[in-house]
Amino acid sequence: MLTNYPKLTDAEIGSTLSRPLLVSHIEESTDKNGNAYVKVTLKDGFSDVTAVMFSTSTADLEARLIKAGTVVDADLTVSEYQGNKSYKAANLAPAADKQLSVSDFVKLPPVDLEVMYDEIIELLHSAADSCNDTCTPLSDLAIRILTKYKDPYMKSSAAISMHHNLIGGLLYHSYRMVKAADALCGVYTSLDRELLLCGTALHDIGKIWEYDTSETGDAAFTSSGILFGHLYMGASLIKSFTNVKDQAPYHAEKVRLLTHLILSHHGTQEWGAVSCPAIPEALALHYIDNLDARMYMFEEQYETLAAGVFSDKKPFGLENRVYRPKY
Amino acid sequence: MLTNYPKLTDAEIGSTLSRPLLVSHIEESTDKNGNAYVKVTLKDGFSDVTAVMFSTSTADLEARLIKAGTVVDADLTVSEYQGNKSYKAANLAPAADKQLSVSDFVKLPPVDLEVMYDEIIELLHSAADSCNDTCTPLSDLAIRILTKYKDPYMKSSAAISMHHNLIGGLLYHSYRMVKAADALCGVYTSLDRELLLCGTALHDIGKIWEYDTSETGDAAFTSSGILFGHLYMGASLIKSFTNVKDQAPYHAEKVRLLTHLILSHHGTQEWGAVSCPAIPEALALHYIDNLDARMYMFEEQYETLAAGVFSDKKPFGLENRVYRPKY
Amino acid sequence: MLTNYPKLTDAEIGSTLSRPLLVSHIEESTDKNGNAYVKVTLKDGFSDVTAVMFSTSTADLEARLIKAGTVVDADLTVSEYQGNKSYKAANLAPAADKQLSVSDFVKLPPVDLEVMYDEIIELLHSAADSCNDTCTPLSDLAIRILTKYKDPYMKSSAAISMHHNLIGGLLYHSYRMVKAADALCGVYTSLDRELLLCGTALHDIGKIWEYDTSETGDAAFTSSGILFGHLYMGASLIKSFTNVKDQAPYHAEKVRLLTHLILSHHGTQEWGAVSCPAIPEALALHYIDNLDARMYMFEEQYETLAAGVFSDKKPFGLENRVYRPKY
Amino acid sequence: MLTNYPKLTDAEIGSTLSRPLLVSHIEESTDKNGNAYVKVTLKDGFSDVTAVMFSTSTADLEARLIKAGTVVDADLTVSEYQGNKSYKAANLAPAADKQLSVSDFVKLPPVDLEVMYDEIIELLHSAADSCNDTCTPLSDLAIRILTKYKDPYMKSSAAISMHHNLIGGLLYHSYRMVKAADALCGVYTSLDRELLLCGTALHDIGKIWEYDTSETGDAAFTSSGILFGHLYMGASLIKSFTNVKDQAPYHAEKVRLLTHLILSHHGTQEWGAVSCPAIPEALALHYIDNLDARMYMFEEQYETLAAGVFSDKKPFGLENRVYRPKY
Amino acid sequence: MLTNYPKLTDAEIGSTLSRPLLVSHIEESTDKNGNAYVKVTLKDGFSDVTAVMFSTSTADLEARLIKAGTVVDADLTVSEYQGNKSYKAANLAPAADKQLSVSDFVKLPPVDLEVMYDEIIELLHSAADSCNDTCTPLSDLAIRILTKYKDPYMKSSAAISMHHNLIGGLLYHSYRMVKAADALCGVYTSLDRELLLCGTALHDIGKIWEYDTSETGDAAFTSSGILFGHLYMGASLIKSFTNVKDQAPYHAEKVRLLTHLILSHHGTQEWGAVSCPAIPEALALHYIDNLDARMYMFEEQYETLAAGVFSDKKPFGLENRVYRPKY
Amino acid sequence: MLTNYPKLTDAEIGSTLSRPLLVSHIEESTDKNGNAYVKVTLKDGFSDVTAVMFSTSTADLEARLIKAGTVVDADLTVSEYQGNKSYKAANLAPAADKQLSVSDFVKLPPVDLEVMYDEIIELLHSAADSCNDTCTPLSDLAIRILTKYKDPYMKSSAAISMHHNLIGGLLYHSYRMVKAADALCGVYTSLDRELLLCGTALHDIGKIWEYDTSETGDAAFTSSGILFGHLYMGASLIKSFTNVKDQAPYHAEKVRLLTHLILSHHGTQEWGAVSCPAIPEALALHYIDNLDARMYMFEEQYETLAAGVFSDKKPFGLENRVYRPKY
Repeated sequence: MLTNYPKLTDAEIGSTLSRPLLVSHIEESTDKNGNAYVKVTLKDGFSDVTAVMFSTSTADLEARLIKAGTVVDADLTVSEYQGNKSYKAANLAPAADKQLSVSDFVKLPPVDLEVMYDEIIELLHSAADSCNDTCTPLSDLAIRILTKYKDPYMKSSAAISMHHNLIGGLLYHSYRMVKAADALCGVYTSLDRELLLCGTALHDIGKIWEYDTSETGDAAFTSSGILFGHLYMGASLIKSFTNVKDQAPYHAEKVRLLTHLILSHHGTQEWGAVSCPAIPEALALHYIDNLDARMYMFEEQYETLAAGVFSDKKPFGLENRVYRPKY
Repeated sequence: MLTNYPKLTDAEIGSTLSRPLLVSHIEESTDKNGNAYVKVTLKDGFSDVTAVMFSTSTADLEARLIKAGTVVDADLTVSEYQGNKSYKAANLAPAADKQLSVSDFVKLPPVDLEVMYDEIIELLHSAADSCNDTCTPLSDLAIRILTKYKDPYMKSSAAISMHHNLIGGLLYHSYRMVKAADALCGVYTSLDRELLLCGTALHDIGKIWEYDTSETGDAAFTSSGILFGHLYMGASLIKSFTNVKDQAPYHAEKVRLLTHLILSHHGTQEWGAVSCPAIPEALALHYIDNLDARMYMFEEQYETLAAGVFSDKKPFGLENRVYRPKY
Repeated sequence: MLTNYPKLTDAEIGSTLSRPLLVSHIEESTDKNGNAYVKVTLKDGFSDVTAVMFSTSTADLEARLIKAGTVVDADLTVSEYQGNKSYKAANLAPAADKQLSVSDFVKLPPVDLEVMYDEIIELLHSAADSCNDTCTPLSDLAIRILTKYKDPYMKSSAAISMHHNLIGGLLYHSYRMVKAADALCGVYTSLDRELLLCGTALHDIGKIWEYDTSETGDAAFTSSGILFGHLYMGASLIKSFTNVKDQAPYHAEKVRLLTHLILSHHGTQEWGAVSCPAIPEALALHYIDNLDARMYMFEEQYETLAAGVFSDKKPFGLENRVYRPKY
Repeated sequence: MLTNYPKLTDAEIGSTLSRPLLVSHIEESTDKNGNAYVKVTLKDGFSDVTAVMFSTSTADLEARLIKAGTVVDADLTVSEYQGNKSYKAANLAPAADKQLSVSDFVKLPPVDLEVMYDEIIELLHSAADSCNDTCTPLSDLAIRILTKYKDPYMKSSAAISMHHNLIGGLLYHSYRMVKAADALCGVYTSLDRELLLCGTALHDIGKIWEYDTSETGDAAFTSSGILFGHLYMGASLIKSFTNVKDQAPYHAEKVRLLTHLILSHHGTQEWGAVSCPAIPEALALHYIDNLDARMYMFEEQYETLAAGVFSDKKPFGLENRVYRPKY
Repeated sequence: MLTNYPKLTDAEIGSTLSRPLLVSHIEESTDKNGNAYVKVTLKDGFSDVTAVMFSTSTADLEARLIKAGTVVDADLTVSEYQGNKSYKAANLAPAADKQLSVSDFVKLPPVDLEVMYDEIIELLHSAADSCNDTCTPLSDLAIRILTKYKDPYMKSSAAISMHHNLIGGLLYHSYRMVKAADALCGVYTSLDRELLLCGTALHDIGKIWEYDTSETGDAAFTSSGILFGHLYMGASLIKSFTNVKDQAPYHAEKVRLLTHLILSHHGTQEWGAVSCPAIPEALALHYIDNLDARMYMFEEQYETLAAGVFSDKKPFGLENRVYRPKY
Repeated sequence: MLTNYPKLTDAEIGSTLSRPLLVSHIEESTDKNGNAYVKVTLKDGFSDVTAVMFSTSTADLEARLIKAGTVVDADLTVSEYQGNKSYKAANLAPAADKQLSVSDFVKLPPVDLEVMYDEIIELLHSAADSCNDTCTPLSDLAIRILTKYKDPYMKSSAAISMHHNLIGGLLYHSYRMVKAADALCGVYTSLDRELLLCGTALHDIGKIWEYDTSETGDAAFTSSGILFGHLYMGASLIKSFTNVKDQAPYHAEKVRLLTHLILSHHGTQEWGAVSCPAIPEALALHYIDNLDARMYMFEEQYETLAAGVFSDKKPFGLENRVYRPKY
């Protein structure tokens, strides 16, 4: 993300912003009077806006080498319409600074993707149960899966809605959960740390096939997501990895329990659990998942709330408006 | 089932019944005064009772060659205790009629097991889509599964509770559903008959591993049932059957949809669906399943209700007391 | 419905459609600048659109013999506004083809109304129980009601929302349910076929008074619908028909049960049942009703969905997005 | 009710009570050892107990002229069994005091039945709208119904459970509701007093057919109660009374609204309303109904609670344990 | 409220209204073309509208001495936009009639504020329990609170939504509830009248701090409202008033019960009760509260409904559309 | 707890246990035949049983210096009755070992009470925010409360049911939650550690007045618990502590937020929250509370479950039966 330009969210009504932006979507429209115009979605790496361009067309823009995925220089004028900001874009041209690429304009989690991935792997290694040499540890299974699917695991969004709709969302969510699980194992010492860490790392792995995450971070359901859901697909993945050659078999009971953790992490049938938590690690996973999702929602609200102020509405997924303390 | 003896349910308070019965369970107890006695569970093929035997012990009975699974001649005296029938057993001895076997005392569905199984297979054959010779029909997949698991499919109970707790319960439930699906395809002609018939035949196949059904028809959860549920296990079974050698692959889209039918047949998340019905065949399966289960409940109530009378209570799973019409 | 013209739903953005259409509604408005314009709702027998006409007024149109109910020739230009199609109408004139009438532009069920009505009557006849000559069969009662109310029974919509909002909706819904009931009686042979067929034919008869269905198929609640609901009005109707001269009385117990079927067909209090199903025919009716309503919803979705694609949203009344298989 | 004897509820463990009691039920049983004994239910007009009589039989009691409905003198010994009082009856004989009758032993409301009935009729008279001489007032309709059904209206219980299970329960419930409605009309002056008083007086009239109330005050469902419910039966009753000869017709709109009040008085579909309150009188009726039912529950609890003490359990129908203030 | 001018709600589309109005809010905006315009919210004492003023700015209006809180003469032109009324304002100038003040344009309850306040105080006095001279009556406590907080108690709105969003809303709501409580104590004579009257008068006192009610009657949550809710704040207020010098202490048990009434008046946890009603006065308060709130909703609907007509929608908080009887 | 004797739970049917036990309750009864007997509740520090003593009375035991609270030597014979263990006690006498006291027979948490208390205080100290010297830290407030109420805070049970019904239950619950909060603050670094630690330490402080915990660890509701609930009482306690002399005032905003944490820790209104979580610390507290309560439930189940086995029933508060892994 580029930090040497004013952010889109900081632009005041009445001002004009000139800076490089990513074109993530273009749509041609006709106004009431039958005149063509174009709507472009522009991203700065923190948020996005959709702006109107009059007297132009998709074809015209393409002739100027501008399409979805192009980094452009643009002038963006902010006005107000029915209580909200409204944007007009003008003077679009491929960005003069050729160093800039799509990745400079895509929102990312606050921790580096590789750092998070490596820390997860390391924690899994540290949790591996020796199995008394009669079997291969569950952690090895988890690491083998994360090694094979490293790329989609690092890129996938963690949710369809705007809230976690970002490249690396799945990884960031999993990362903080693995760390929270590790911290809680220090308090609840009877929990099986290897099982819980594998469970937190892999609980949402099925989302790799449930969502299609675009290069710019937009997620959409797949037909497999509609037909099967990520719990089933995640559990199926574990099953397909359990038969391996040239090594002792994985700890069979732990593989069953990891499967149970994935199937039950939504907690209750009402919330979509395939089976409900039957062991403490499954319930701990469920609460850690809920806690992390809601911590993220608060953090998002705090990005725009001033001290001593509360949000206009109760955000979806929370039970009250969000208040930001005065200090 | 033996029909030439008075039924257990017909025995009046104050009377004594002498007939062959199956001992399905024996439990030794001590009364308040410290005297040992024995409780035996006895079955006649329609229902079962637990009777008290005073002044005896498990060891004593074993010495007389009586244990769980033995067919005995017995005298059963019916008294009344706190509003319910109470039973005393006496004079137990291995049955004089050596022709009698366990299967004479186990409750079975009203249609012969083999007849039902064969009719399901035949209907699946009749529904097979030719696939334009480029693939192997879905019906073949269903038949292959039912062939391999014929034995447990015919024996398994369909539920843990008393209601469908009988040998052949799963088969009887599936059989009537396949026939109802076939009948409805004549009305809703745009439904994919092959898909719906395969779905009704296999929707509860996972119950083979969810329950342990004993020789005498008692069902109990397995740990896999607790940890995974039959929807996941049924869908996993489909997956494990899809790779076959020496034949054209199964119709891939239909295999996906059959998997969806199994995962979604509980209709809503609240009722335990893994994903919710996204195609009409999935919804039809859900209603056919509900209808058949409740028809069974009504039939059970009608076994003991007289004309013009209603049940004492709203049976679990129904929304009102059950009324039996006067005609 | 006319099939030799392009459908409204097929018109592309940017194109102009010229064809005969039914004017179903006219509304005069003023724009922000105080200029009058007119909004006309136009139907082609499959769907409807509301188009803008600038520089005209209701009075002006009336002078040209155009009002609600007129069949016109029109030019309809399709543009795009805020992601949706937007329509401008021009050159309206009474249709040149004088053969065209309102009924050519009204959406109807896929089966002929008279055919459906006759088939229901015939099935009711076939189900009549002889009553041992001591009473008049229940089927006669049902037929007498359907004979008296044939006209509204054939015309009424089956629901207020867009989904079943069509002339003949009640009839089409009842027709398929009677046929489904008949088919299921072949599987569940202990069901009283006469009772269930009468129940499916008459379960929604109260909707005749619950809704006002206009000539063009639009339904609206009546005040009786608000104050009483169609279950009470349907059951009251049965009662008012039970006293007849010059014939043996109807089978009294069956009349009670038919009344119960109507009062209980919503299944649970939560869904508006006056009493809950106490006999298997009542529960079967409830499931057949639900199944038919949802089959209709799927069919509606499939009208516009391509193979391999799923709907943008979960339709109201279903539990998931709708998927259309690839084959 | 007799007040010159100790009450059943006041008898202490270890004591023996000798007094006249009503035999309301006799049941013969056999103990574990096969000996016959008899259980008799005895009432004192405030509550009832079931006592054991050893070494006797139904036949033996009949020979001594004792059966259900007989007033007897009896000795009742109170012991304790598993934390509850347990009773032994002995020395039963037809009561020496021949003045005593069944009605002396039946629980009644705290206000005289005739007084309540008369006050309801008087309030209905006072509320009659003159109708401008063009119609017969709604109050007349209500009074005509209450005149015809005076006897069952005065005797019927208002509920099946123990809570309102008494002779005159329906009347007492209606009486206090009519008075509460009258009081509230003084505050909410725009309410139609005639409509609301008729509605409170008649809202539960259908219970006359929903329950069978025995001479001793026990209520049981009828099959009509199961199949139709009292809302439908009450509304049907109104309909059957609306056509009268030799008088101006009843105010048609008010008759519709009274029907609506009866159909909607359960407030929401979830609680069994046939339609939901659409006018303020319907909603007022609903709250008055709920308030009176719960006031009764508190009064029942207070009969046995000491000051400063709270009930052991949350009574069914209330949301908390019941507390009795210290003063 | 001024009654000698046409009401805002009576203005027809196409007409222009010229009358004095209160400016309650001004907001500057920019249209799509970048031109500034102003939106002003205008009140007539019955309702409010937001009108557009073209070619002006906040600064321009201020120069003409017009800002929020100014009474102006204005011309208001009503047009129609997307099915709703749309307003243009012009010729605004400080009102010529200098007698007019803000209070002439603010909606008030139908009963005078001082009259209601005095009647509440009087009823509380009349209900005071003598306490046998050993304590100070609870009524004195209630009166002391209402004396200290007379001003906000008389001004505060009773709800955030449009429904009770008016100056004096809290007082009007409390007033009618105190009167309804008084009326019901005449029927349910065992209720503690002092306790219930104090409870109805004070149950929503915490709303004084939960909402910010502006001079013109608009209510908004405070941060204390978000963090604590009015139940806790009301109960805390009672506590802070219980220690007084130079008088006998308040009746301690009644103070506890009054606190309970405030904490429990939402009836169930689901509706936000802190504890649930444990005494009959608490439950009576809950129903009186619900009844009054819904009577207000019906009255609001009836302001605009014609006889024999029902509302377009089910209003929020009611269970059905609202019907206005024909008479 | 004494570890050199066989536990009550280990006693087999048919055996007799002789050991010192605590008499926690004595109740005199009469059997069916009118003979007096006594039921004594006996505790060993891990669980308790209720045993029958024939041919004795309370008076007789008192004469032998045995009453509730006495440590006795006893012979306890275990038999079986209706599937459960049944106990007969005999030969009771004041314990020969005079070193034994009540505290030797009361179940306690697995961590020493003083150790837990000290660790909580220490963590609160470590979290104290310096407040920039302008105010007194929130931690000081929490510590002052815990200092004043140290005794009840250490003794109180945390719940009425059997699950946390032990001396020190509140302390153990708070202790693990403070530690879990501390651990999670290392992962979610933007959380206010001082606020969350104070919140976890004090969230259930109101239970001190909600329950009466007996010397032997039995908890019962108080009338204040019924009327107010522990959330209100806990928040009130904070308020009463906020005014202090001779020191800078506590950080006002943090005091408000701590109050909010206590009022909102049940998460949703449905679960009894007075207000719902508006800041992340409040939501974190809610999840930590839920997690700890359920971890305790699993631990309790594991006390009696063997490896590879699942519980007979779904325990109250959990969503599935509990499974104990095989390893």
